[in-house]
Amino acid sequence: MPRFRMLLEYDGEPFVGWQRQDNGPSVQAALEDAIDGFCGESVAVTAAGRTDAGVHALGQVCHFDLVRDATPNTVRDAVNAHLRPAPIAVVEAVVADPDFHARFDAIRRRYIYRIVNRRAPLALDCGHAWRVPQPLDAEAMAEGAKALLGYHDFSSFRTRQCQAKSPEKTLDRLDVQRLGESVEVRAEARSFLHHQVRIMVGTLAQVGLGKWRRRDVACALAAKDRAAAGPTAPPEGLCLMGVDYPPRKAAR
Amino acid sequence: MPRFRMLLEYDGEPFVGWQRQDNGPSVQAALEDAIDGFCGESVAVTAAGRTDAGVHALGQVCHFDLVRDATPNTVRDAVNAHLRPAPIAVVEAVVADPDFHARFDAIRRRYIYRIVNRRAPLALDCGHAWRVPQPLDAEAMAEGAKALLGYHDFSSFRTRQCQAKSPEKTLDRLDVQRLGESVEVRAEARSFLHHQVRIMVGTLAQVGLGKWRRRDVACALAAKDRAAAGPTAPPEGLCLMGVDYPPRKAAR
Repeated sequence: MPRFRMLLEYDGEPFVGWQRQDNGPSVQAALEDAIDGFCGESVAVTAAGRTDAGVHALGQVCHFDLVRDATPNTVRDAVNAHLRPAPIAVVEAVVADPDFHARFDAIRRRYIYRIVNRRAPLALDCGHAWRVPQPLDAEAMAEGAKALLGYHDFSSFRTRQCQAKSPEKTLDRLDVQRLGESVEVRAEARSFLHHQVRIMVGTLAQVGLGKWRRRDVACALAAKDRAAAGPTAPPEGLCLMGVDYPPRKAAR
Repeated sequence: MPRFRMLLEYDGEPFVGWQRQDNGPSVQAALEDAIDGFCGESVAVTAAGRTDAGVHALGQVCHFDLVRDATPNTVRDAVNAHLRPAPIAVVEAVVADPDFHARFDAIRRRYIYRIVNRRAPLALDCGHAWRVPQPLDAEAMAEGAKALLGYHDFSSFRTRQCQAKSPEKTLDRLDVQRLGESVEVRAEARSFLHHQVRIMVGTLAQVGLGKWRRRDVACALAAKDRAAAGPTAPPEGLCLMGVDYPPRKAAR
């Protein structure tokens, strides 16, 4: 009974998110249906990060078990064929250790949040970035981000629906960089709370717009209250870039 | 009677191309309708490059005349508002010289053709790149491209529908570079023949796949016959990145 690990890309726009739900198409359901279509097995697919509706992935990782044996390349090609025309791609499939767990074994999640800072609407990037028409001071945002680095109670930066047992997390990276009209926020941590990246970006945008001072970010963190942080940035700017595992889990 | 010059982005996927045609929506018609919607004037919009169906632009340039006076920022914002929800954006509008001509004054067109060289289908890049599943030797493609640089009769590299008076053009740049799984071809010239970039890319792909030797590109050029060159690469990989004008024409 082999366990497979797959590297996935998807455009989050048409999905209610990673997780199977009654109210619309999910990435998980599309994958489980494609696997069923290819080999007739009803499997449960587990992902490293349960991305929200509209959030994209270039480096999502998932695992599942099959009863029948199949080569990883056959799994990749057959699942891709059955996924059509959904905007999901299996970039790679490998045989994993029988105890590999895409979610619990992950030691780092890496996200990029992309803002396009201009007055004109988006054409080619529509649905793949958050357009902010007013000028953003990316350096002020980068300074403000420093208050969030490290081990904290991130209660102010999680949605009230967040089901994590503890609001305490260690944020390893939160960089803000301007590249022409783009402002990119890179966030890395072992794990994130529900909506954490988007609330951090929405809060830093307040700093970038000059509505908040840099030290207001530290105050919002100290308040341990969602109402103290800024608004939640929209999902379409967010992309799960990659998930890291300890070397012994990285490949069989 | 001011003449306006605009910098445009668009996703070519839903359009029959730049030029107004009877068989479907065009970028030109969408712009002319949006200008009419904003100020009630029926104008003709002229572009630097008449991109084909499915070809994208990040730096198209166009011009048109209005009877009424309007500030360039009003034109930009009002045309963008009337373009919705078409995936076209006016990035910038400026008042141009009364004799500025987006097409005839252009001294350089810059294109990028993007190939994604991998077996997995495209998810986030779907419709914005050409996926080639077999391995491409980008260095061989770069070597093969050198045969096309300079002043030549490019009859082998234009579609039979091409209406240009002369097949003689000067190709200033044709670079091929691999960036991870992407292979990017950058082409620059004062002007190109119809389908020239896509036929050059389709021909270089034959070299990259090992089906053609590098010197076969020179033979194809010398034949002055469309049948001697490779297939036409699909439109979705092509993007008009920018158009250059002489300094005196660059801005009023």
